[in-house]
Amino acid sequence: MTLYYNKVRDDGGKPVPSERIRVRRRAGRARYDREAIDAILDEGLVGHVAFAVDDQPYAIPMLYARNGNELYLHGSPLSRLVGEMADGIKICLTVTLIDGLVLARSAFHHSVNYRSVVAFGSAHPVRDGDHKRDALRSLVERMVPGRSDDVRGPSDDELEATEVLALNIEEASAKIRSGPPLDSGADYVLQTWAGELPLRLVAGAPVPDSRCALPAPGYVSHYARARD
Amino acid sequence: MTLYYNKVRDDGGKPVPSERIRVRRRAGRARYDREAIDAILDEGLVGHVAFAVDDQPYAIPMLYARNGNELYLHGSPLSRLVGEMADGIKICLTVTLIDGLVLARSAFHHSVNYRSVVAFGSAHPVRDGDHKRDALRSLVERMVPGRSDDVRGPSDDELEATEVLALNIEEASAKIRSGPPLDSGADYVLQTWAGELPLRLVAGAPVPDSRCALPAPGYVSHYARARD
Repeated sequence: MTLYYNKVRDDGGKPVPSERIRVRRRAGRARYDREAIDAILDEGLVGHVAFAVDDQPYAIPMLYARNGNELYLHGSPLSRLVGEMADGIKICLTVTLIDGLVLARSAFHHSVNYRSVVAFGSAHPVRDGDHKRDALRSLVERMVPGRSDDVRGPSDDELEATEVLALNIEEASAKIRSGPPLDSGADYVLQTWAGELPLRLVAGAPVPDSRCALPAPGYVSHYARARD
Repeated sequence: MTLYYNKVRDDGGKPVPSERIRVRRRAGRARYDREAIDAILDEGLVGHVAFAVDDQPYAIPMLYARNGNELYLHGSPLSRLVGEMADGIKICLTVTLIDGLVLARSAFHHSVNYRSVVAFGSAHPVRDGDHKRDALRSLVERMVPGRSDDVRGPSDDELEATEVLALNIEEASAKIRSGPPLDSGADYVLQTWAGELPLRLVAGAPVPDSRCALPAPGYVSHYARARD
């Protein structure tokens, strides 16, 4: 039920995990192909960025967006974390999608169906105006596809007040569990319900702000996060 | 939209953040009281554990459960990560609940409504039999309240094959954003829909495994994760 990871390098050809970083525990759940990794990254909304400062590890939730080989993050240039990341400290971005609870006949075999990605590297600041605007546009589009054409884009002052960071996807792996519980043979006689309880992130009815009398646009009223 | 944290020590009386660790950015979103922290921890399912090994930071998704002042994690004693944690390396457990998307009239003021907790400390292994069984029971109950009475509890071999780790809640903080977008004054004239799009983790119809002909129990068919 715990999720184990190790990283892998994709050298462009068939991805082969190095011995040092090969997923060892529950290796059957490991995926190294870029397509699986991108699909998970593109469905997620908030990732957790791990880093260490003065020997203290942190995991911080952050919005992110992928564009090709780059993962964008952003924040205030006044933030210490953002400053450390812009300086190129090592980070790990983890994205986890919860697909369901796996209820086995024994406590021991309970599990979670999930899809997750870890990506390793160092981020670098994106300060070129066009690249920065594109990255910020990606962040809005990742959140709500179709939204960016409807909103006022960033002013020069707003651009200045935002640090955009890019992490190249160089080392990453995905790990996936799906399907029914796997019970110990002797436990199948137990009269205990077993199966999967699917979970998904679902949008409720849009709540217009008090100064907005417009109808919600289609990309809001028909918003869906999950893959199906 | 980026979420900033710092940690705070709760000394039993009114929690007062030390100057060193006070939340600086978006400090209005910071909560230090234990009740707010516990409510978020108790609603979450999967946390992200950050740690660093050989100067490389990792964020790993893990199930967790709170019992009083202890946060339980578990995994295989064969896992390197679990071994490092049992040895008492510094960790950070972060739990993030996504409540909705905040759509402003400008790209810059887009945000996310969320509730999150970061807890800092070192975990220690729980190897006393009764305490370990209680912790594992908490983990099943946290996943599906009511489930633990229905399942076969861990055998001695299964207990042996599971390392349980406890993190005492000593330093933690919560950060919360809720409510409508806050636009720049001049942008309120724009004819752009603005408001909140609520998101929640919702259970679908239970899927019994192929060898189970029993009806789903009420705690499965009426399962709900969110607070309301």
